[in-house]
Amino acid sequence: MEEFDLIIRNGLIVGSHGCYAGDIAVSGEQIAGIFKAGFIGKAHREIDATGSLVLPGVIDTHTHIEEPFQGLTPLEDWTAGSRNAAIGGVTTTLNFSIQDPGKNLMDKIREHFERAGSLSCIDFNFHGVFTDYKDLGSVRKEIAEMMRFGVPSLKVFTIYSADGLYADDWSMYNVMMEMKKHGGFVGVHAENMSIGEQMQQSLASSGKIHSRYWPMAKPNFIEAEAISRVAMLAQETGVNAYVVHTSTREGVEILSSYRRKGLPIFCETCPHFLFFTDDIYEKPGIGVWQIISPPLRKEADKERLWQGINRNEVSIIGSDHNAYQKGPKEKGYAEKGFMGVSNGGPGILEGLSAMYTGGVRTGRITLERLTQITSENPAKMFGLYPRKGVLAPGSDADIVIFDPEKKQILGQHLYESMDWTVYEGMEVCGFPTHTIVRGKILVDDGDFSGNAGDGKFIPGKMDQNLVRTIV
Amino acid sequence: MEEFDLIIRNGLIVGSHGCYAGDIAVSGEQIAGIFKAGFIGKAHREIDATGSLVLPGVIDTHTHIEEPFQGLTPLEDWTAGSRNAAIGGVTTTLNFSIQDPGKNLMDKIREHFERAGSLSCIDFNFHGVFTDYKDLGSVRKEIAEMMRFGVPSLKVFTIYSADGLYADDWSMYNVMMEMKKHGGFVGVHAENMSIGEQMQQSLASSGKIHSRYWPMAKPNFIEAEAISRVAMLAQETGVNAYVVHTSTREGVEILSSYRRKGLPIFCETCPHFLFFTDDIYEKPGIGVWQIISPPLRKEADKERLWQGINRNEVSIIGSDHNAYQKGPKEKGYAEKGFMGVSNGGPGILEGLSAMYTGGVRTGRITLERLTQITSENPAKMFGLYPRKGVLAPGSDADIVIFDPEKKQILGQHLYESMDWTVYEGMEVCGFPTHTIVRGKILVDDGDFSGNAGDGKFIPGKMDQNLVRTIV
Amino acid sequence: MEEFDLIIRNGLIVGSHGCYAGDIAVSGEQIAGIFKAGFIGKAHREIDATGSLVLPGVIDTHTHIEEPFQGLTPLEDWTAGSRNAAIGGVTTTLNFSIQDPGKNLMDKIREHFERAGSLSCIDFNFHGVFTDYKDLGSVRKEIAEMMRFGVPSLKVFTIYSADGLYADDWSMYNVMMEMKKHGGFVGVHAENMSIGEQMQQSLASSGKIHSRYWPMAKPNFIEAEAISRVAMLAQETGVNAYVVHTSTREGVEILSSYRRKGLPIFCETCPHFLFFTDDIYEKPGIGVWQIISPPLRKEADKERLWQGINRNEVSIIGSDHNAYQKGPKEKGYAEKGFMGVSNGGPGILEGLSAMYTGGVRTGRITLERLTQITSENPAKMFGLYPRKGVLAPGSDADIVIFDPEKKQILGQHLYESMDWTVYEGMEVCGFPTHTIVRGKILVDDGDFSGNAGDGKFIPGKMDQNLVRTIV
Amino acid sequence: MEEFDLIIRNGLIVGSHGCYAGDIAVSGEQIAGIFKAGFIGKAHREIDATGSLVLPGVIDTHTHIEEPFQGLTPLEDWTAGSRNAAIGGVTTTLNFSIQDPGKNLMDKIREHFERAGSLSCIDFNFHGVFTDYKDLGSVRKEIAEMMRFGVPSLKVFTIYSADGLYADDWSMYNVMMEMKKHGGFVGVHAENMSIGEQMQQSLASSGKIHSRYWPMAKPNFIEAEAISRVAMLAQETGVNAYVVHTSTREGVEILSSYRRKGLPIFCETCPHFLFFTDDIYEKPGIGVWQIISPPLRKEADKERLWQGINRNEVSIIGSDHNAYQKGPKEKGYAEKGFMGVSNGGPGILEGLSAMYTGGVRTGRITLERLTQITSENPAKMFGLYPRKGVLAPGSDADIVIFDPEKKQILGQHLYESMDWTVYEGMEVCGFPTHTIVRGKILVDDGDFSGNAGDGKFIPGKMDQNLVRTIV
Repeated sequence: MEEFDLIIRNGLIVGSHGCYAGDIAVSGEQIAGIFKAGFIGKAHREIDATGSLVLPGVIDTHTHIEEPFQGLTPLEDWTAGSRNAAIGGVTTTLNFSIQDPGKNLMDKIREHFERAGSLSCIDFNFHGVFTDYKDLGSVRKEIAEMMRFGVPSLKVFTIYSADGLYADDWSMYNVMMEMKKHGGFVGVHAENMSIGEQMQQSLASSGKIHSRYWPMAKPNFIEAEAISRVAMLAQETGVNAYVVHTSTREGVEILSSYRRKGLPIFCETCPHFLFFTDDIYEKPGIGVWQIISPPLRKEADKERLWQGINRNEVSIIGSDHNAYQKGPKEKGYAEKGFMGVSNGGPGILEGLSAMYTGGVRTGRITLERLTQITSENPAKMFGLYPRKGVLAPGSDADIVIFDPEKKQILGQHLYESMDWTVYEGMEVCGFPTHTIVRGKILVDDGDFSGNAGDGKFIPGKMDQNLVRTIV
Repeated sequence: MEEFDLIIRNGLIVGSHGCYAGDIAVSGEQIAGIFKAGFIGKAHREIDATGSLVLPGVIDTHTHIEEPFQGLTPLEDWTAGSRNAAIGGVTTTLNFSIQDPGKNLMDKIREHFERAGSLSCIDFNFHGVFTDYKDLGSVRKEIAEMMRFGVPSLKVFTIYSADGLYADDWSMYNVMMEMKKHGGFVGVHAENMSIGEQMQQSLASSGKIHSRYWPMAKPNFIEAEAISRVAMLAQETGVNAYVVHTSTREGVEILSSYRRKGLPIFCETCPHFLFFTDDIYEKPGIGVWQIISPPLRKEADKERLWQGINRNEVSIIGSDHNAYQKGPKEKGYAEKGFMGVSNGGPGILEGLSAMYTGGVRTGRITLERLTQITSENPAKMFGLYPRKGVLAPGSDADIVIFDPEKKQILGQHLYESMDWTVYEGMEVCGFPTHTIVRGKILVDDGDFSGNAGDGKFIPGKMDQNLVRTIV
Repeated sequence: MEEFDLIIRNGLIVGSHGCYAGDIAVSGEQIAGIFKAGFIGKAHREIDATGSLVLPGVIDTHTHIEEPFQGLTPLEDWTAGSRNAAIGGVTTTLNFSIQDPGKNLMDKIREHFERAGSLSCIDFNFHGVFTDYKDLGSVRKEIAEMMRFGVPSLKVFTIYSADGLYADDWSMYNVMMEMKKHGGFVGVHAENMSIGEQMQQSLASSGKIHSRYWPMAKPNFIEAEAISRVAMLAQETGVNAYVVHTSTREGVEILSSYRRKGLPIFCETCPHFLFFTDDIYEKPGIGVWQIISPPLRKEADKERLWQGINRNEVSIIGSDHNAYQKGPKEKGYAEKGFMGVSNGGPGILEGLSAMYTGGVRTGRITLERLTQITSENPAKMFGLYPRKGVLAPGSDADIVIFDPEKKQILGQHLYESMDWTVYEGMEVCGFPTHTIVRGKILVDDGDFSGNAGDGKFIPGKMDQNLVRTIV
Repeated sequence: MEEFDLIIRNGLIVGSHGCYAGDIAVSGEQIAGIFKAGFIGKAHREIDATGSLVLPGVIDTHTHIEEPFQGLTPLEDWTAGSRNAAIGGVTTTLNFSIQDPGKNLMDKIREHFERAGSLSCIDFNFHGVFTDYKDLGSVRKEIAEMMRFGVPSLKVFTIYSADGLYADDWSMYNVMMEMKKHGGFVGVHAENMSIGEQMQQSLASSGKIHSRYWPMAKPNFIEAEAISRVAMLAQETGVNAYVVHTSTREGVEILSSYRRKGLPIFCETCPHFLFFTDDIYEKPGIGVWQIISPPLRKEADKERLWQGINRNEVSIIGSDHNAYQKGPKEKGYAEKGFMGVSNGGPGILEGLSAMYTGGVRTGRITLERLTQITSENPAKMFGLYPRKGVLAPGSDADIVIFDPEKKQILGQHLYESMDWTVYEGMEVCGFPTHTIVRGKILVDDGDFSGNAGDGKFIPGKMDQNLVRTIV
């Protein structure tokens, strides 16, 4: 019997459907076994997790690392981004890969594959995004190639025509048909293009460019309409689908109504929609920096999202991490108000601890539910399960040791390369102490010890039966 | 490092939310660890499960072992009943304990506790059933005592006034209020007493006593009405509740509508409702023996129940095992037609293999879902989790090794003490080869090797957070 | 061309689906014609209705004139009751006729037929109510006779076992089956007997008999449960059905859900539920007098009822007029608190003007809707249409001239034989100036001029196609 | 007392909520009075309607008289079209007026106003249709002018970009906002442009241009999606809205779900969707001629539409009359298959008798419901009530005398200027014998006696309270 590389002892091992006390033994990159205390000899390294939770590593379903957007390139690179992630307990990220004009989508995926492969310290996969749908034959060929490459997720935008991202309904319908054939997932950024874009213009042309007008530029129905449309097309094509960063109560209701019919149509939200509301846009500074899409909403939306998580209507959580700094945001705002601000903000670090504090400790959701939405469900949706998303023998040793009593003030100081965050000053109770990716300890008792290149591309292989088990 | 008592090698370990290859090591009565192949030395006994599924033991939520009803006492005793159960993969049963007239409910629970303790070879707990609700003060006291004893489930009948089981709405409401206080579960046999009972009399008095009239004596709305009422009271009181042996499509719909609101109101069905329909009542023999309550239904009900399982609307499965032999049934029928037949039939043995064959192999449900409804959910509902209901270190070693390719003809020959079963002649593909209870191998490569008294009472301890995780 | 008996000139004639200016000519007991102004010569009597609304006479669907209940006999007789009705614009009443113990239901109907025939000044028909369901054969025979007699409505109580009114579900089911055969209507007083009655006992036995406990004795779910059950049985039998004096938001929702399926299952409410809430039970005096069944509810129920009227979910309005005086109510209360108070209160007079003021003037409902629920719908439900319920040639000249600007303080001074009303002191804007029944002017410019015996029994003849047109 | 111009005696006068026997007297253009038989002396002309129904004239809510579309101009002019209408019982039409490129919408409305004023023999109003939404300021101004002119209805197309009709969501949203201000109605041709148009191209480019592919070019979800979007925008803006020629079961469901919330969002269907299904497209000849938009659907859609009428979910009926002859249709088809066929077909004549035969005689709907959807509801929606839409004193004498026993074979022979109809050969039982518009008899015992110019523009004046009474 060989000696293990690592044993985590005496923690409360958190499963998606129940917890139990036990020891986890790691050998190489994988979990070798899970034991009752006292059944294993020794390891090169042992961590006493007494009093701590032992969670499967978080999979962030929605990041924009090294992805310029609306003319702005985040300062943060894959190394900084993945370090920020690891500190927060994220062990895998699903990053956007947006087709560059005039190039193939696969070019961009390969480019990210190379960059992240050499720079990221956490594992990764991608969401492909087309910017050119004109030749649907090429689109179909690229989808097939993408699936073969191990990227089973395609993201579609129903808005951002000026940014070249907009897919009209015919394109979306065809992409869904194609992805259905391959068994992949189509994620949709759902906002009504026609109204969403012209409402902004209309406000701007009457001088209403203060940040406080931002939520008025994108009222709830802009999202609700698009979600309704997306769900109808998903139903028609039978594709696995989900709506990214759902922010409205109407959105949750619509998606839930399809889910209840047994269709594989899911809902992602972001932690910031669970903690902040649109009164922020009255404030100078943060009100400008936090101009994102969709905008923060009302209390009723926030509460419906929490309820949606609790009632299995919201299945995954993505940070929508977009590491734009203050400077360019403020510069754009000074020129053109909200029209000049690139949408996006950081969040890759705070999700787990914020949701533990605001969700589990308050009783809004169970610890098991937290694990489902942050780890198990994403792994199943994107073909990573059971390699990722669960603490089981043979799975990758992606483990977060989480001290439920550790108090931490959230804020930019935790980040590398970021000078603001909407979570600034929030006190959480519960924070990761160790983050382990495939057996490598990236965060060790709070200290980052990872290296560029620790991370790997994890190819996704879809299993529709696993999709059926998502709750 | 100690040697293990038992290692099950190379099986596909089935979790409620995913499967993985691995070895399970048992030490004493518990699972000591779960490993990747090759990480453990040896054990006193090793079983090669290559090609087999390794499932958590089935918990049958609904049996009537040694419980006389409608004047008839089943021939099968706890030893025979538990042997039949073990052969089918059942490792724990939740048996009815019905208050005897003039005695306390706890008397009956203690009596069963003793009988089963010395005779059963599988583990057990109970559902308490009052027959006397007149003094609600006493009822409340007994409930408190029952909970302390470790029986967290109370069953209520909305029918059977002649059999002394009927609880009027006020009694049910009060019992729910009391159980809510204690965090227990109220299960309800839901049929409209007034119409259900008098419809039978009415048919009988016009000479319609042939078995073919049995389903007409209890049309769907008899169940649907009662379910609707039960759910409304459960909502009002906030109690954990479920409806036993739900047989109608309407019933599933109603319960599902409450479940969607986030309420802990659940649905149990029985395997026979998933495989048989009411055309059986035209047949001689089986048409009489299979007079049960509620009766078999239509194809549309059957399909809705399967769909309900698939869509997380039906959460548990109980056999409603009632081991009445042909003789007394036929005798009663000869005298008074369906009015003379004690309701009930056997089924403790066939559920797992029938549902694997008809549910998993056909693609109607996933293997994970099968495990949820047969093991995890019952364990959570009745306070047995994670001791029961999951294969995890520290859990009881209640394990079924299930050969998915083993063909078997179901029928009375598999049973002890039974001379018929509605499953007679059904060919299944998939059958348990080994059934293990707390480390003791009761069925060893198909041979029964258990003993009276192997089984133990497992006290239930409710955890409302676990109830929230039931799907 | 003959001369007319009466012409009402220049009013706004209110139809159930639109209004128009015109003159109405009456000849004998009927409307002879409706004209544009200026097209008819003269009449014995002419009324200038300039500025007034001309409405079809109100049909009060729910009165208890000369019906003792819970040991109390109202002082008001048919003459007084019908005078009070006429002052408020009611031209026909549908009065309860409750079978006396040991007698036939038809005896009571005939008794009322005689009494009202000689004493009432407005027209009338009845709701038959059985108190003895033991012999369903007799019940069926009586139903057939009642229908032949011209009484197409049977009322069923799901509560009041002590008062001998309670019908168990089997009785209700059978009565519905029989009424379905005849095409009549079954109205149900829907409250859960078991809980409703024992909850009162339970409060009383802990000394909670103050009027403030009255609403707690009959919480919303007591009504909602029974409505749900009634609707399910009505659906099963296909009978025309409605729930009387619906008071809860849940009740409206449930009935509406059946109505949407196209079933003839309707909802009646009472004006007092639209104007008053249960805070009244804190007050001395009125808090005791207004102990009625069901009790007044919360603001949310009130608003849902108004919405229900506006959205065609509530189809008729009945006063539930029960002319109990203060004295016996207070006497009973002094002895046994709410347990000693006979349920019921007056209201036959105020409905139209209160609803015009609080409904039409406020924009909650249209004038057309008011006419539908107070006149057209009742006429269709109880087989009186088009003789009653509409202003059309050939219809009975049952006409209310209503001055929309007439201010009036409601209260006991408007009544004969009543010493209180819950409407005491309410100022309305809009009140009848003339009430005409079959051509006879009962209220002439505010003065009562009717006589005992002016009223007639109007036999009901069901037309299912007309039931289908009810909104 | 003056003599009347016309008396219609002894008919059954059909109201939207009930029928009664009576005589109708006409003086000049209006109904002077309605009487019981025997109450009026004489008239210049008397018609004995014994045994006949007397209906308010039908208002066809959807015609394309003298409106070229997709490059094709119907041969039928206003005189021929209105003659065809009158024969079928239509007394008013609401005709499309589509803005010509480079001109104002009001130019086209005025042009139609002149043409129809001199050529039509029935009354008329219009639905304005913009083709140019670029300058929303101008659009708003034109809307205001249109409303002042008396045209309170604007039609929007969510498809037909090649034909210049397409309004994007922003334009539709703005138009709805503006119409909300004025209290008018927005009708929408609801089909998803992007998919609807490109699906056709896609089929065509793979050679699938046979008429049998036409329904595949526009599957149900194309309509359902657009209806869902339209309803959401209508809800957001609060405007009065309806969807024209709804053809799918999904469409009815969606609109009904909004209607149930009390919103003024309505559903129009066409008689051809109630009688024909898409198997017609397999046939030569009629399969080509009947290429219309949306296409004929399946039996399940047809039945849901009938149910929708019966359950007050479908509120109006329009013929979508488009008098294209065979020749140009076949010519286009020969060239380009379904892509070459101008969409549209005749139907202005058959609606009333077809629906009476297939709806009322079969018991699917009541006679009252037929009158609601063909006359009362359109009058209320388009501001014509009570001048049109009801038989009442002071209303226009638009009257159809309809012999319910008259048998008639439908077909082109009844038409002027048409050489085909989808109703060819259908035998109806029930047909108009007389059609009267403002007192002028256009069809006299089956013979057409109207003249060009008999018809008049009837300005629409919206009354929101009347809209609330629509069922």
